[in-house]
Amino acid sequence: MTVNAYAAHEAGGEFSPFKYELPELENEEVDIKVHYCGLCHSDLSMRDNDWGMTQYPFVPGHEIVGEVIAVGSEVKNLKEGDLVGLGWNSASCMHCIQCMDGSHHLCPSVQGTIVGRHGGFADKVRSHWSWAVPLPKGLELSKAGPLFCGGITVFNPIVLSGVKPTDKVGVIGIGGLGHMALMFLNKWGCEVIAFSSNPKKKDAIMEMGATKVINSTDPEELKSIAGSLDFILNTTNVTLDWDSYLGTLSPKGKFHTVGAVLEPMAIPAFSLISGEKSVGGSPLGSIALTRKMLEFCVRHDIYPIVEEFPMEKINDAFDHLHEGKARYRIVLKA
Amino acid sequence: MTVNAYAAHEAGGEFSPFKYELPELENEEVDIKVHYCGLCHSDLSMRDNDWGMTQYPFVPGHEIVGEVIAVGSEVKNLKEGDLVGLGWNSASCMHCIQCMDGSHHLCPSVQGTIVGRHGGFADKVRSHWSWAVPLPKGLELSKAGPLFCGGITVFNPIVLSGVKPTDKVGVIGIGGLGHMALMFLNKWGCEVIAFSSNPKKKDAIMEMGATKVINSTDPEELKSIAGSLDFILNTTNVTLDWDSYLGTLSPKGKFHTVGAVLEPMAIPAFSLISGEKSVGGSPLGSIALTRKMLEFCVRHDIYPIVEEFPMEKINDAFDHLHEGKARYRIVLKA
Repeated sequence: MTVNAYAAHEAGGEFSPFKYELPELENEEVDIKVHYCGLCHSDLSMRDNDWGMTQYPFVPGHEIVGEVIAVGSEVKNLKEGDLVGLGWNSASCMHCIQCMDGSHHLCPSVQGTIVGRHGGFADKVRSHWSWAVPLPKGLELSKAGPLFCGGITVFNPIVLSGVKPTDKVGVIGIGGLGHMALMFLNKWGCEVIAFSSNPKKKDAIMEMGATKVINSTDPEELKSIAGSLDFILNTTNVTLDWDSYLGTLSPKGKFHTVGAVLEPMAIPAFSLISGEKSVGGSPLGSIALTRKMLEFCVRHDIYPIVEEFPMEKINDAFDHLHEGKARYRIVLKA
Repeated sequence: MTVNAYAAHEAGGEFSPFKYELPELENEEVDIKVHYCGLCHSDLSMRDNDWGMTQYPFVPGHEIVGEVIAVGSEVKNLKEGDLVGLGWNSASCMHCIQCMDGSHHLCPSVQGTIVGRHGGFADKVRSHWSWAVPLPKGLELSKAGPLFCGGITVFNPIVLSGVKPTDKVGVIGIGGLGHMALMFLNKWGCEVIAFSSNPKKKDAIMEMGATKVINSTDPEELKSIAGSLDFILNTTNVTLDWDSYLGTLSPKGKFHTVGAVLEPMAIPAFSLISGEKSVGGSPLGSIALTRKMLEFCVRHDIYPIVEEFPMEKINDAFDHLHEGKARYRIVLKA
């Protein structure tokens, strides 16, 4: 089967139409007709080969919403015509301890949708049936794409860390990831503090669900909430004054990063010990949790704030993201 | 009431007999006749004013086992003649959110037994009733003292981190704290890996409950167990190759330190993110958990390995500890 996609042919290169052939469908695979595909910052990093694992020609796109158009003979849970979403991962071994335990995203041989294979900036994309997550009724297709990567990335830590509706929580960095975290935590029932380096965004941030906005560049403001937060989610990937943030945690508080800051985090042991605190991280989330997240989104009308481009304007969309202008996620319509 | 104690009168000073007067017993306080008192490394640090908070004359001792000899009018749960243990803490406010939540050890105004007041190297010691923990029947008094500081320090992380009997766990540093951790984890049902820099201790370490001993100075041995541990407890207070230890954790694994290494821990965010791992710490443990630990010790015959000195040999005991000769805890008999 011929796929009509957009590919870059070198690091940092422009995208141009690119056709490729898919082999015969394997028994456990499905083909998806792409309706929408979100543009995530990791598509940009992969285009530029920032992580040294990009293969060219490179077709990005891993926040896919579409329709199942073909199913292999052993596919479970899906049939032609079903609406599904596909995120960063597209297959896992299905039998290791992580897969059998429901943590398919931690499978040692988990397959990335745009790593060594082609992604969703195309008319069609293929995946293992398990990662093509059925969409619940009522989900708004045009905004749902980013939920499958950015959304689950910030939703998973809330569940992992056992955040309770009675908790007081903080989110560092109110961008593509952080703004979704504010929405989730607000509907989770929490008191939600947003840490932002741009106080001009305050009104917009309050509308996303924050109860209070703290200027993260002002040490006095951090001190004003010392010892009060049960959970902090860091969505930035820059080195922060980690100990100051640990100081805003209450006893038993948890600091969780999804931002992969390159420089090792300097964490004073005493700051963990004295208050029974911890620092954790996570990548994306499980298939089962993705399903639950989607139901939560429908129930509470939670969607990323998106800007839509037609897919043929893919280069404009990448430029927009690269220039730091995305407010807050970009979706390409097929 | 006159207390006959041993005090140091300056940092690093010798101990000599020291008498002091206790004021009238407050309504919620108890007086305890000391039978045994463990000697902990923090007694040495406090004697030498390593933490800048020692007041002289200084009476150390915070691993106390003894008998209640006087109770205030509002004391609950205790009467004269009861056998009790008293550890690092001797009072807390009883009304803050931490105290009301059962985490009295995290109370912002928790009172240390040897901080700004006199401890248990004496014939008598005083505390709030809540921290004088009743001893379960069958507990061996002569070895129980260290459970109230070192014991609960390593028991608490097992509970906090949700360690399960099916887990594979590691303990770094097999000394005063680590050897108790091995015993607890063995009886917890776990597969227990001991990390030791001294392979000569192997037989002794296996006897304490380890299933396997890894030479922590050999990077190849660490690599041989990559990705396998659900939980690691660090009892040392020196800078380690943190990332190598994170590499021995399985996905969702937890690294927990009770060793207060001074230099900030350099933790690569990516090592946490990729496997949903976390790094935490804790001080001592709650009163309720101390009670449960004692029952666990009686049920499984778990005691520290102790060397006993008569209390009048307190200077010999401190020298023994200072020279690194303690195998593995020291207890002074009153």
